Amino acid sequence: MISLNEALNILNNYSLNKKYPAEYVDIYNSQGRIIAEDIISKVDIPLYNRSNMDGYAVVDLNLKQYKIIDEIFAGDMRDLIIKQNECVYVATGSKIPNNANFVIPIELVNIIDNEIIEPIEKITEKYISKIGTDIKYGEKVLKRGAKLNERTIGLLASVGIEKVKVNYVPKIGIISTGNELSVINEVNSKTLYSIIKMANCIPVHIGNARDNMEDIENMINKAIKLNCDIIITSGGVSEGKKDLIPNIVLNRGNILFHKVKMRPGKPMLFGEIDSIPIFGMPGNVVSCIVCSYVYLLPFLENITKKMQTTKKIVKAKLGGKVCSEPDFVYYRPVKLENGIAHLTFKGSGLITSIVYADGFIKLNENELQKNKDDVVDVWLFE
Amino acid sequence: MISLNEALNILNNYSLNKKYPAEYVDIYNSQGRIIAEDIISKVDIPLYNRSNMDGYAVVDLNLKQYKIIDEIFAGDMRDLIIKQNECVYVATGSKIPNNANFVIPIELVNIIDNEIIEPIEKITEKYISKIGTDIKYGEKVLKRGAKLNERTIGLLASVGIEKVKVNYVPKIGIISTGNELSVINEVNSKTLYSIIKMANCIPVHIGNARDNMEDIENMINKAIKLNCDIIITSGGVSEGKKDLIPNIVLNRGNILFHKVKMRPGKPMLFGEIDSIPIFGMPGNVVSCIVCSYVYLLPFLENITKKMQTTKKIVKAKLGGKVCSEPDFVYYRPVKLENGIAHLTFKGSGLITSIVYADGFIKLNENELQKNKDDVVDVWLFE
Repeated sequence: MISLNEALNILNNYSLNKKYPAEYVDIYNSQGRIIAEDIISKVDIPLYNRSNMDGYAVVDLNLKQYKIIDEIFAGDMRDLIIKQNECVYVATGSKIPNNANFVIPIELVNIIDNEIIEPIEKITEKYISKIGTDIKYGEKVLKRGAKLNERTIGLLASVGIEKVKVNYVPKIGIISTGNELSVINEVNSKTLYSIIKMANCIPVHIGNARDNMEDIENMINKAIKLNCDIIITSGGVSEGKKDLIPNIVLNRGNILFHKVKMRPGKPMLFGEIDSIPIFGMPGNVVSCIVCSYVYLLPFLENITKKMQTTKKIVKAKLGGKVCSEPDFVYYRPVKLENGIAHLTFKGSGLITSIVYADGFIKLNENELQKNKDDVVDVWLFE
Repeated sequence: MISLNEALNILNNYSLNKKYPAEYVDIYNSQGRIIAEDIISKVDIPLYNRSNMDGYAVVDLNLKQYKIIDEIFAGDMRDLIIKQNECVYVATGSKIPNNANFVIPIELVNIIDNEIIEPIEKITEKYISKIGTDIKYGEKVLKRGAKLNERTIGLLASVGIEKVKVNYVPKIGIISTGNELSVINEVNSKTLYSIIKMANCIPVHIGNARDNMEDIENMINKAIKLNCDIIITSGGVSEGKKDLIPNIVLNRGNILFHKVKMRPGKPMLFGEIDSIPIFGMPGNVVSCIVCSYVYLLPFLENITKKMQTTKKIVKAKLGGKVCSEPDFVYYRPVKLENGIAHLTFKGSGLITSIVYADGFIKLNENELQKNKDDVVDVWLFE
């Protein structure tokens, strides 16, 4: 049995060395994705000297009257020149005459017979955005590694990018195993499906397998055929007579680790079949969720290369005593109430141990006990 | 022109009074949705007295030897009875004999000729989860209003629910307007699309309309035909000669508010066409994003009834001075660095005003100035 740190090192090295190709996606579907290249603008923004107001463009502000000679609406790209005593009606966002220096807002002028304007008061602002003041041609507007959100997507749109190169998002096949699934409700494939979506990856439910070699191998073959980049099984990974996952991985590939000094989650397996990484999650529902947070989510984050880690940690006072055993790391779900972290763990197989919790606490190796009122770090669920 | 609070009240009342039907979704696709009914379990979990270990089920612990009389694997639902001097091999998760009280783990026994076990040491735990200890038949396991996550989805699965009744998620049609969109890159439909996804709603890009009544009305008709529950336009909502949105809403429905004392975002319009709410967002990109946070996201949260508000507020020292004008609410994007909130606003139409920011600060009505080093609340972006 290896320590949690050894297991995490194996996983970490594996995910960082495995290569996944970048891909192009439509920016409408790029939310949450990580940019795989620097974005250099190939346009000036604004593209032209642009009016910030509905009003009248003029060359200078010193005249009492200006003659209206034209109207320019957004989208009108004419190159106009005006004289000192002339003005042009301009709409917000439209291109002003080339030599205009000011826009007098419509509410600050009297209009006489639709021909002449008389400024009512002197403006103190130009109300013009000059070409390139927002973004310049050739400017680096986003760095490789940035995560796309509603604003950075807008930025891509504004520089004319419709498809963007982003880091790969793996497709992950989920297989539940166990003869009992014909009798009791199957849970783990649904929690894993949701966890994979949380990581912005693509879950594929392959199916449930009974506890025999043929059934499990068929499911694995189906996942490979569907081009899954990663396979996750749940159940069948402990040391019972029908725990077949370790044998299958050993026969068809190799086991990189199996059994870790942690609770819940001790039977955890990680290996490879046909160069595809396979996670053998414990079948107990709480163990499966804890192992997803400890192993699977950081692994997927490495691959999709999120900029910020999603770990949110808060401090709280422990609501009771927890004990562990030498060399083991213990994770225990807690519910936060008024700064108290109440222990909710009842057993690895009992979903109510975790379903109403807000996060975990962790007892490191040889940190054998934590007492009521100790201040602890609570690692919040997403 | 109305105050921001008046506008928010109108919106709030509107969204709370508008009825949207609950619907059933497959639990695989239920992440982030809000449950529309209490969930009562119709099963006991565990469904039977279940072994927590691979080992041997016995009636009591006082014997030196037990005769192995059978094997039970997960999924085997036989009702077995054993004698005092007998034991049965049980796998983790399997149903133990009806009268068994203890499971002795496999690693704590010597097995003699596959017929007899001898316990090596006395166990202190029963290693059994009794029927119903996790969840009882008839127990309320989730309350109406709970947001579904990887764990609550697992809970639904465990009580046998495959389709769950959830609050309605509106389908929202997005229309950008402006003749300039033939010349410059269109941005707002992409940011709005992303913001609607952030709110777990369904965006539909209807298209871009030129600044004429027919074009805009065609797009609105298309949105209605596609059964959009809400329509969002951007641009054409100010007071210029080609600002046609207010006219169209007035002709075909009614305007609930138009123009609000806030910057950016002053031209904001909200109304109804054919009983469908319509948001007329300002065309300037920063105004459009700010109005999405101020008006659209809270409106959508009211409809989808998220339990927790998504507003995250942190304190920071202001990096410079900001001034506003009487009666107006001002929003200004800021970038956080070492506890300093640096102002990034350059103009409502300049996307770099907001794209690299972390959140907003707000100057309330008649809070006319904030100075460098003032401690401010920063409302973080999602």
